[in-house]
Amino acid sequence: MAENQHFASIIRAYDEYRAWGLAKADRLERHYGKLSDADRAVMRVDNKVAGMRAAVEQNARVIAQLVAPHRASVPAGDDPRVQVAMPQPDGSTRFVPTSRTDYVPESDLEKVQSTLKQFVREWGAEGRAERESAHGPVLDALRKEFPQPEGVRVLLPGAGLGRLVWEVAMAGYVAQGCEFSYFMLIAADFLMNRLGAAQETVTLHPWALQTCNAVSAADQLRPAVAPEVPPSDLPEESNLSMCAGDFLEVYRDSEAAWEALVTLFFVDTAHDPSEYVRAAWRMIADGGVWINMGPLLWHFHDMPGEVSIELTWQELRSLIVACGFVFEREEWCRCSYTCNPQSLYQMQYNCIFFVARRPPRQPADGSEP
Amino acid sequence: MAENQHFASIIRAYDEYRAWGLAKADRLERHYGKLSDADRAVMRVDNKVAGMRAAVEQNARVIAQLVAPHRASVPAGDDPRVQVAMPQPDGSTRFVPTSRTDYVPESDLEKVQSTLKQFVREWGAEGRAERESAHGPVLDALRKEFPQPEGVRVLLPGAGLGRLVWEVAMAGYVAQGCEFSYFMLIAADFLMNRLGAAQETVTLHPWALQTCNAVSAADQLRPAVAPEVPPSDLPEESNLSMCAGDFLEVYRDSEAAWEALVTLFFVDTAHDPSEYVRAAWRMIADGGVWINMGPLLWHFHDMPGEVSIELTWQELRSLIVACGFVFEREEWCRCSYTCNPQSLYQMQYNCIFFVARRPPRQPADGSEP
Repeated sequence: MAENQHFASIIRAYDEYRAWGLAKADRLERHYGKLSDADRAVMRVDNKVAGMRAAVEQNARVIAQLVAPHRASVPAGDDPRVQVAMPQPDGSTRFVPTSRTDYVPESDLEKVQSTLKQFVREWGAEGRAERESAHGPVLDALRKEFPQPEGVRVLLPGAGLGRLVWEVAMAGYVAQGCEFSYFMLIAADFLMNRLGAAQETVTLHPWALQTCNAVSAADQLRPAVAPEVPPSDLPEESNLSMCAGDFLEVYRDSEAAWEALVTLFFVDTAHDPSEYVRAAWRMIADGGVWINMGPLLWHFHDMPGEVSIELTWQELRSLIVACGFVFEREEWCRCSYTCNPQSLYQMQYNCIFFVARRPPRQPADGSEP
Repeated sequence: MAENQHFASIIRAYDEYRAWGLAKADRLERHYGKLSDADRAVMRVDNKVAGMRAAVEQNARVIAQLVAPHRASVPAGDDPRVQVAMPQPDGSTRFVPTSRTDYVPESDLEKVQSTLKQFVREWGAEGRAERESAHGPVLDALRKEFPQPEGVRVLLPGAGLGRLVWEVAMAGYVAQGCEFSYFMLIAADFLMNRLGAAQETVTLHPWALQTCNAVSAADQLRPAVAPEVPPSDLPEESNLSMCAGDFLEVYRDSEAAWEALVTLFFVDTAHDPSEYVRAAWRMIADGGVWINMGPLLWHFHDMPGEVSIELTWQELRSLIVACGFVFEREEWCRCSYTCNPQSLYQMQYNCIFFVARRPPRQPADGSEP
C-alpha cells in the first residue's frame, strides 16, 4: 500500500473508534432488552450501558486530540492504485479507491483499542507492576553493563509509546527508539511531545468495552490517567530520539553503531528472526551487548500469505550463538502485557531475559592489540 | 441444522484433523525453506517438522479409534434442507448439501485440537495441577456439605470428558454429567467406556502444532498419556451417568431433583445467564446447594447473530440473590484451563468459587413443620 494511503487508513481507524464502540454498547443493550424489567433493575445494567457510552465518548475525545495535528498529513486525493472491492446493491462488485470506501477492518479497530491499553502499560499508574517486571531487569542490566552512561548508545526497536526509551534516556544513555506502527507513533507523539510539553494528563477508560471477565461495572468503567510522570521531566542534556519505520530498513547501513541493543517484546515481530539476529550482530559495536526480554508469540503465525519463521527458544538461541554472540545471562521472567489487573482473565508470559555479548574483536595473530 | 447433519459435521471435522495438521507442518517447512541450509542445520528445524508430522499422524490414529464406532450413526443420505454456498470456478455460487462439500470450518478443527488438550486437562498427568486447583475446592465443598454421600444427587452440566463427574461418583455420590458438545461426548465415551473397559491408555501430542511460545522442539512434541487413572476403577456400586444435550432442554421438567448442582467453567456458556439461574433454582432441592467454579468468558460474546447477555460478577451475583439463593461461600481461586505448562504463554483465571444455598422451605405460618 502506498505510504500515504496507509497513513490515511490509520487515521480513519482512529476516527471510526467512536462509532465502533457505541455500536458495541448498542448491541449489549439490545441483548439486555431480552431480560425482564425486574432483572434489568436488580442488576442495574442500564446504568452500565450508559456508562459504557460515556466512556467511549471520553476515549473518542482523547483520540480526537491525538489525531488532530496529523490530519494535515493525510493526502486529499486518492491513490488510484489502491482499491477495494465493494459489493454493490445489484450484486455486482465495483473497485473504488480505499479512501472513498470508509472501510476500516476490525483488526485496525482492535489496534486502536490496544493503543488505549498501551497508554496504561507504559504511562499509567496501573501499569506499574508490568513495567517493573519487564523494564526493571533491562534497566538493571544496562546499569550493570555501563555504569557510566555518558555517550553509551542504546537502540530500542519496537519502542511503542516510548516509555522504556524515556527511562533509558533518563538514566543518562543516548537512547533511540524505533517504531513501525503508526498507531503507536501517533500516540507516542501525543504523550511524549504534546502532553509532555503542556504538563497535562488525559483520562481514558481502556477496559470499558471488555464485557467478559469483569468483576463489576465500576471495574469495567474505571478511568486510567496518563502519563503518571511528566515526560518533560527529562533533563535538558538528555539524548532521546525516535525513528519511524521498519527496524531492518531504517538501520540497514548501521554498523557497530550501538553499545547496546534492547529488544523488549520485539524479536517475535520478525517474519524471519534470522534477519533480526544478523542485524543485531552487524549494528552492535565490538564488546557491546544485546539485552532481550519477551516471549515468542510470532506475530505473523496466523496471517495467511505472510512469511512466518516460527522458532522455539532453543532454535533461536542456537542461531544467536552460531552468529557469534556469547550468552552472559539467561533467565526466565514472568511479565504480563497490557493485562487488565482487575479482570478474571490473567495472562503472563514466561519471558526470555538474556544478555548476549558481541565479543571484542581479536587481532588476527591472537596477541593483544 | 438437522441433528444428524450436525453429528456428521463433527465426524467430518475429526476426520479432517490429519490433513489440517499436516498442512500446518507443510506451511512451516515452506517458510523454513527461506532460511539458509546452514541455519536450518544449526537449528535442526527439519527434524522438528518431521516430528510434527509424526505427532499429527499419531493424534490422527487416536482420533480414528475415537470416531470409529460412531460412523454407523452418520446418515448416508443428504438432508437437502442443509446446504452450503460453494463458489464455482466460473465465479458463480452454487448451493450443495453440506455432506457433499467436505467443508469443515476452521473453528471445528480448533475444537478437535481443544479436545486433544482436554484429554490432558481431565485425564493426563500434566493436567494434575489444573485439576487440583479447579476440582479440589468443589469436591471439598461437596464433602463438607454432604459427609454421607449415599443417595445425594449431584448434577454437573458442561461435563466435558467426565473427569469431575467420575470423581464425584468415586466419592460415593449419585453423579450425572450433562454435555452439549458432540466433540466432547465422543471423546468422553472413548475415554470412559472403551479405554476404561479395556484398561488401556492412548498417547497424544496435544501441543505439536503450537509453534508459538515453545521452549524447545522436545517440549512442543512431547507426548501425553491418558487416562492416568483407569476410569474402570469406579466401584461396582457407583452411580455415574452422562446425558447428551442442552442443559436447559434436558432438565426442563426437573424440579427439586438434585441435592447439589455443580457448575465448573459452565455459567458463561449461557446465551442468557438468567435462564441458568432460574433453572438452578427450580432443579435444586430445598436446602440443596449450587457449587460454582469458573470465570465469565461469555461464550457467545464474539459471535455475530447470537444472543449474548454478558454480565459482570456483581450483576450475576445480584440476580442469584434476587432469585432466592443465599451465598455461604464466595472466594477467588486461580485456575488455568487446558494451559500448556511448558509454554512461555501462561494464562490463569481468577475463578469465582461459590456455594449458594436454596434455603429450606418454611411453612406459611413460620412454625417448624
